[in-house]
Order: sequence, then structure tokens, then C-alpha cells
Amino acid sequence: MVFQRKHILGLEELSAEEINLILDTAGSMKVVSKRDVKKVPALKGTTVVNLFFEPSTRTRSSFEIAEKRLSADVLNFTPDLSSVVKGETLLDTARNLEAMGAGVIVIRHSMSGAPWLLAKELNSSIINAGDGAHEHPSQGLLDLFTIREIKGGIGGLKVVIVGDIRHSRVARSNIWGFLKLGAEVRIVGPATLIPNEFESLDVKIYYKLEEALEDADVVIMLRIQKERQESEFFPSLREYSKFYGLGLEKLRLAKEDVSVMHPGPINRGVELSSEVADNVNSVILEQVSNGIAVRMAMLYLVASGGSDL
Amino acid sequence: MVFQRKHILGLEELSAEEINLILDTAGSMKVVSKRDVKKVPALKGTTVVNLFFEPSTRTRSSFEIAEKRLSADVLNFTPDLSSVVKGETLLDTARNLEAMGAGVIVIRHSMSGAPWLLAKELNSSIINAGDGAHEHPSQGLLDLFTIREIKGGIGGLKVVIVGDIRHSRVARSNIWGFLKLGAEVRIVGPATLIPNEFESLDVKIYYKLEEALEDADVVIMLRIQKERQESEFFPSLREYSKFYGLGLEKLRLAKEDVSVMHPGPINRGVELSSEVADNVNSVILEQVSNGIAVRMAMLYLVASGGSDL
Amino acid sequence: MVFQRKHILGLEELSAEEINLILDTAGSMKVVSKRDVKKVPALKGTTVVNLFFEPSTRTRSSFEIAEKRLSADVLNFTPDLSSVVKGETLLDTARNLEAMGAGVIVIRHSMSGAPWLLAKELNSSIINAGDGAHEHPSQGLLDLFTIREIKGGIGGLKVVIVGDIRHSRVARSNIWGFLKLGAEVRIVGPATLIPNEFESLDVKIYYKLEEALEDADVVIMLRIQKERQESEFFPSLREYSKFYGLGLEKLRLAKEDVSVMHPGPINRGVELSSEVADNVNSVILEQVSNGIAVRMAMLYLVASGGSDL
Repeated sequence: MVFQRKHILGLEELSAEEINLILDTAGSMKVVSKRDVKKVPALKGTTVVNLFFEPSTRTRSSFEIAEKRLSADVLNFTPDLSSVVKGETLLDTARNLEAMGAGVIVIRHSMSGAPWLLAKELNSSIINAGDGAHEHPSQGLLDLFTIREIKGGIGGLKVVIVGDIRHSRVARSNIWGFLKLGAEVRIVGPATLIPNEFESLDVKIYYKLEEALEDADVVIMLRIQKERQESEFFPSLREYSKFYGLGLEKLRLAKEDVSVMHPGPINRGVELSSEVADNVNSVILEQVSNGIAVRMAMLYLVASGGSDL
Repeated sequence: MVFQRKHILGLEELSAEEINLILDTAGSMKVVSKRDVKKVPALKGTTVVNLFFEPSTRTRSSFEIAEKRLSADVLNFTPDLSSVVKGETLLDTARNLEAMGAGVIVIRHSMSGAPWLLAKELNSSIINAGDGAHEHPSQGLLDLFTIREIKGGIGGLKVVIVGDIRHSRVARSNIWGFLKLGAEVRIVGPATLIPNEFESLDVKIYYKLEEALEDADVVIMLRIQKERQESEFFPSLREYSKFYGLGLEKLRLAKEDVSVMHPGPINRGVELSSEVADNVNSVILEQVSNGIAVRMAMLYLVASGGSDL
Repeated sequence: MVFQRKHILGLEELSAEEINLILDTAGSMKVVSKRDVKKVPALKGTTVVNLFFEPSTRTRSSFEIAEKRLSADVLNFTPDLSSVVKGETLLDTARNLEAMGAGVIVIRHSMSGAPWLLAKELNSSIINAGDGAHEHPSQGLLDLFTIREIKGGIGGLKVVIVGDIRHSRVARSNIWGFLKLGAEVRIVGPATLIPNEFESLDVKIYYKLEEALEDADVVIMLRIQKERQESEFFPSLREYSKFYGLGLEKLRLAKEDVSVMHPGPINRGVELSSEVADNVNSVILEQVSNGIAVRMAMLYLVASGGSDL
């Protein structure tokens, strides 16, 4: 099978076959990362621009390492406030980067849908590195990759996503990804943080973490944006943590070999206790590590259309 | 012909032959940019430092891509305020970069003449990426390159430069460049923004855009610094735009195949209307694209003295 | 001899043999820096992360150039305030970089001992680029390298370190390094800036610069942090400069071929006069230049364990 897409924008629009092709390719890339010389010439001479309108040291760094391992020429383009303030449109900025020869643009933007706008208007390949509260496909794919590697497959697994579903692009990409590959997806959090839109999907909604955890194979703890504490969504960090934080005791309600995930950076003592973060069930650092291979695969596939490595 | 200069500081001091050699070399570089592997080993092992005292995401990015396509080792050196505030002199900073092995230093500085100071004192090659309101040679050269490619030559063309001539290094480099290659140069703008210095040059001065546009082959719209609106130079953006902004109607006063240029980023609705920016006459994105090839040529020529590619 | 260490954290813990091995390796690296193509493939495919919690354009730039000359993939990871503020621990940040495949982490941190914490907990190689007021081994090593090259050796030299000994990691690394290689080390400064801890070491303490300079082979002028002027340590810059600044007159008290050093950036007219800074005795730019070769050697040795170049 050859990857036919020029862009990777979200998991909602990818088929199970396409997702599996990306994960298989990431498997090959992981082999590269274990070699002495962790580099392949696949993107030599291709300029990849990381266009981050929201700061994100971690995701950008992961993409940057992935790009360099593929031998791409990397440009970190951080739109200076002046350009944005002075009113240059997103599209003008992106068209400039295309004109400078960007083969791939990796974009993060606070506006849901921004990557689709670019994909429609430009000839460069677009990778969505997070758009608003909409999708974060590279995170979703690396979570799938990590679980597939550990459990041997995704189909039939019970996957629990915990926390601020409403504002989380990680949650959305994971829901689409795990559903498409045949998992049972449960979402759980305060009622204020679970939007109605998910009622129509094949997702089980819980409000008590203890109930959601029963027999779970995978638990994905979403990051709490502490600044949201001050809004109406939940009364206090302490209360949130008491009901939706994961400690060792609650963890025992899940399967013994449950995998605990978190997109990072973790707030120790808030979403999960330090004991859980450093526990044998935690696969948080495997996620980070697999992020390189998965992003290499995404870049490689959109840039080359999946021709031979 | 071999390029004899170690530095490229401004168009005023270059001969027509030297300018044409740079443009010819840029032509070869443009071929590289169209290859599958857009990279040549010409500057492998050469450290190029982008020393930008004024922020400029776009010009710096263009240089950075050009440097990487030449396989240079690139260092973006953004002087931290502390060093500047603590009083380290420009020359001490530059001498440090030279001592670290910088083969080429690309400098942008708010002080007119700063690149000449470095060229006089250092052994590194210096490229001026914009000094105060003085010169911006890479912009001037990429404008010449773009027009030469489109029109087949520069001699005899009628070139109109519109707007804030007074504060514009782009204007100065373009005036020198187009004059040297034999064009007729017209400048037009509010009287407050046209300094006396140009009266002695072989330049035609206009105050009405409509008159300047007559029979024009090229129109270069300068960027308006909105912050200048508050000073004494012009009463309001709306008034500026009414008299010196370019819409489709005024555009018809020029030749039918007139090329409309802008150094970017554009202010849609201020210097030019969106219709003009996206019109078939607009070569704004070609300028951006050619900027890579022209900067590759500049870097290559100062670093190698023009030996064979 | 093979370098057995995985990390370079400070000069206090290195033996004279280890220091000399690093300096010898730096000698080989300096040869590379004089070639036409200033690049070796030694670290190809190795990801080196510059993890700077304190801003330092100069030291980071020197490491970055060194890393690129070794063909490493370089990531500048500047922890964004948000992560730090939101409470991600140093160790979580570093473990993430390790998980992303960092072969070497070059860390600067305001907390003394931070690099040792990382070395204890991670598998990546750690290089200390300055920890609090504790050690700055790359600066100490490049100072030793510079003097060894100029004087032919270190043993028996009279080395004077002048200024704010209390807050200076440069002073500490230099004291350990010069003592281990057999020099006589004198420290001199206002009593408020000379801590008691040095009384137990084999160091001579002076309070008058004139006395300390007698017969000196090397004078290391420490940088004055002007912000300390406002604290209790010394009354005014002018007074500091009068008593501990180095002018041509005082310089004559030292040996005729004395080498004057400064870690940079220099405050002309404070620690030393412009005449001294630009004098034939000044080796300040040699220090900067040698910094590349010494950092190449450090990176190469920790990454490869000293196998053949």
C-alpha cells in the first residue's frame, strides 16, 4: 500500500488502513533510532518549516529532532508578534514560506481548522501539530503506536480518557484513532468538561473515574490547564485531583497490566500521583520516545508519498 | 569574470558588471532550487552567522534557508539585550564571532554603516542584511533578478518606487540598482517622505501617484510602518492609502504588463488593495522565491570568490 | 589513554591526566578548525541538546558551532517559562529529552549541582555549561588550553585571578584546573568577594592587585556583574575599577610576556582598560577561538569514549 495523502491533518479523516500504514512506517523509523548513526537521507534537500503560532517547546522539539534524523533542512519560523499584530494574514505568511521553498509545513495554531485552510491553498505538504481544541494527530498516532507495540494490537482494548475532554485536542485525536482501530473508548471527567458532541459517537461517557477504570487496558490522563481552574469548569485543583486524579489505589481498579499515558508535561500530584507517574504501568516516557519515530513516519510519508525507504 | 569582493555591503558601490554577475549566479542557484535534492555542498564546513540586531523573521529565514541549501553550518546569533545593555560594543561582539570561526557574518543593524565598520575591522566576509535607512542590498538584488527574469532585461524600463522613500533602505538599494542597470527611476510619495538627497541623482520625483504610473513597467510599493502614522509624516493611514495606495483603477495607468512588487509583509488595503496583491501583475511571491536563489548567490560569491560551482 | 568518563561536570573531579587528554584532543580538533572544510563526521546521527535555563548567547553559540563541526544534530531547548512555572521538574524535562534520543545534554542551570543530578539519573552524557556559582568546566579547560599553547605548559606558572571570586564559577573551575596542572594560583579582590572556602586550598589570597601581579605569568580578569554593585559587595564601579581594574600601568608589575585573559563579554573601562583589552598581552580572542576546539573535544570524548578520530 502507498500513502496517497499529501497532508496529515487529523485522525477523523484517516482510514484504519492509513493509520496502520503510518504506524508500520513508524516501526521502521524506530529501527533507525536504535542504530549507531540515527539518520537517514530520506528528506535531504527538503526544507521543513515548523510554523508555531502557539509556543510549544516539546512538540516542536520532537518534530525538529525527527526532521533532522531524516536529513531535512529545518527552519523554525516563529511568527513575530509584529507581523501578526500588523495584520499579515495566516495565508500570506504561509504562502511566503511556500515561496521560500518549504516542502513541508508543520503548523500549530490556536484556530481550529487552520491546517485545512493551508492544505487547501498551498502546494506544500501540511502536518497539523495541533489546531485549537480540535485535533493533535501526531499525539494520537504516537499513543496508538505505543499501545499497539505494548499490547500487540488495538482492537478490543478498553481505553479510558480522563479529564478535560472539552478543551483537549489530544482527546479528540485519540477518540478517533482508538475507535477506528476497534477499541472501546470511555471518556470520563466533570460534566462541565464533557461536551455533548460525543453523545452521538460510539463512546461511553462516565462521570466517576472509579467506574470508568473497571477492567481498563489503557488510561490516558489529560493535562489540566491550571489557568482553567479559575473559570467555571471546576472548583479547585484539589477537588479535581480528588475525583479525577489517578493514584495507586484507583489504578488497581484497572487491569493489572494497564498502561498509563499522559501527553506531558505532567503535573505531579494533580492529574496523577508521583507514584503512578514513575510506576511500572506508566508508559509516559515511551510515548515521548515513540513520538520521534511516529513524526519521522508522518514527515516521510507526506513528503515522499510512501516510496521505498 | 570572477567576483573580487569579500563583502556585499550595498548596491551603491557595486558596478553594473558585478551586479550582473550576482544575478547570473543567482540564475544557477535557482536551478538548484528546482532539483529534487535542493542542496549543494558549496559552503560545507563554513560557519555562517546571522547577526540580527533588529528582529526580522522573514529576511533572516530567507538567509537561513539559503545557507542550509549551500550546506553551511548556520548560527543564528541574536544578541541578548543584556550584552547590548551591558555595553559590549558591536565590534567586540563581531570579533567574538570571527574568533569562533565565522566565515560569513550576515548583519542587520539599526545603525547606517554598521556593516562597513565590520568589513573594515574583521577578516570574516560581511553581508549587509539591512542597515538603518541606508541599504538593503539582498532585497535590491532580488528585485532586479525578478524583473530581469520577467522582462528579459532592465535597461530602459520605467520603474516607479512608491511611498516612504525617506525611511526606506529598500528604496535606496533599488534606486542604485535600477539606475546602474539602465532603468528610468521615478520616486513618488508625500513631500514629507521624499528627502532632498535624491534631487541630485538621476531620479524623477513625483508627488502624484497617477502621474508617476504613466507607462510604467515596474511599480515597487514600499511598506508603510504604521507607527509612523502618529508622527508628522502623514495625517492618517486612510489618507495615505487614498493618495498613494495602489488599487486596480490606478494600476490601469501603467503598462498592461506592469509588474507590481512589494518587499513584504504587505498591509492589504494600505499600500495596495487585495485585488492588486493577488492580481496577475503581482510578482510579490516570485520576489520571495527568488530571494533564496539571490541570497545563495551572495553567500556563495563572498565565501568562494566565485570559483566554479 | 582512553577517556573513561561519560560526563564532564567539573574540573574538581578530573585528574591531571584526564585534563591533559582533553587538552590534547582539543589540539587535534583545532587542526580541523583550520582546514578548508571545518567539519568531521564524528557525531553524525547523535542528537546533542543545549538545555540552557539561564540565557547565554555566547557559551551556547560556542557549543552550537562545536556540535555542528562534529556533524551532530543540534537542538537548542530553551525551557519555556510556562513549563518551569507550571512546575515540571528539571528531572522530568531532562528525562523527556533523553527519551527523545538526546545522546549528549549540555546544561546550564542557576542551581549548583544540577548537572550532577542529571548525570546520576539519566543515560545521556551530560556536559556542565555552568551551574550556579559552582563550576564552568568548558571555560576552565579553554583557559588551560590557551595558556598551555602559549607558554608551552602550565606547571610552575604564576596565575592571578582577579575580582568577584565569590560568585564566579569561572574562578572555581580555573582554580581547580591550574592547581591540578601544577601552577601557583593567586586570588585577589575585595575582602567581601573572597569567600573563606579558599583558605583551606593551596591558593594564595591577596587583597591588593599590585601585590598579586608581581611576577605573574597569567592574569585572569573576572567579569563584574554590574547588578552586584547595588548590593553590599562593593561601593561603586568607579571604586572597584580603581582598585581592581587592570590598566597598562599595573600590567607592568607582571612579567613582560604576561597573558591577560577574560571570559567575556568584557566591560571596557571596568575590569580592564581598552588599552589592555587590545594590547599584545591580551589573549581574550584566542580564548574565544580555542573555545570551539575545546568544546569539540569535550563533546567528542563523552560521546565516543575517546575511540580513534
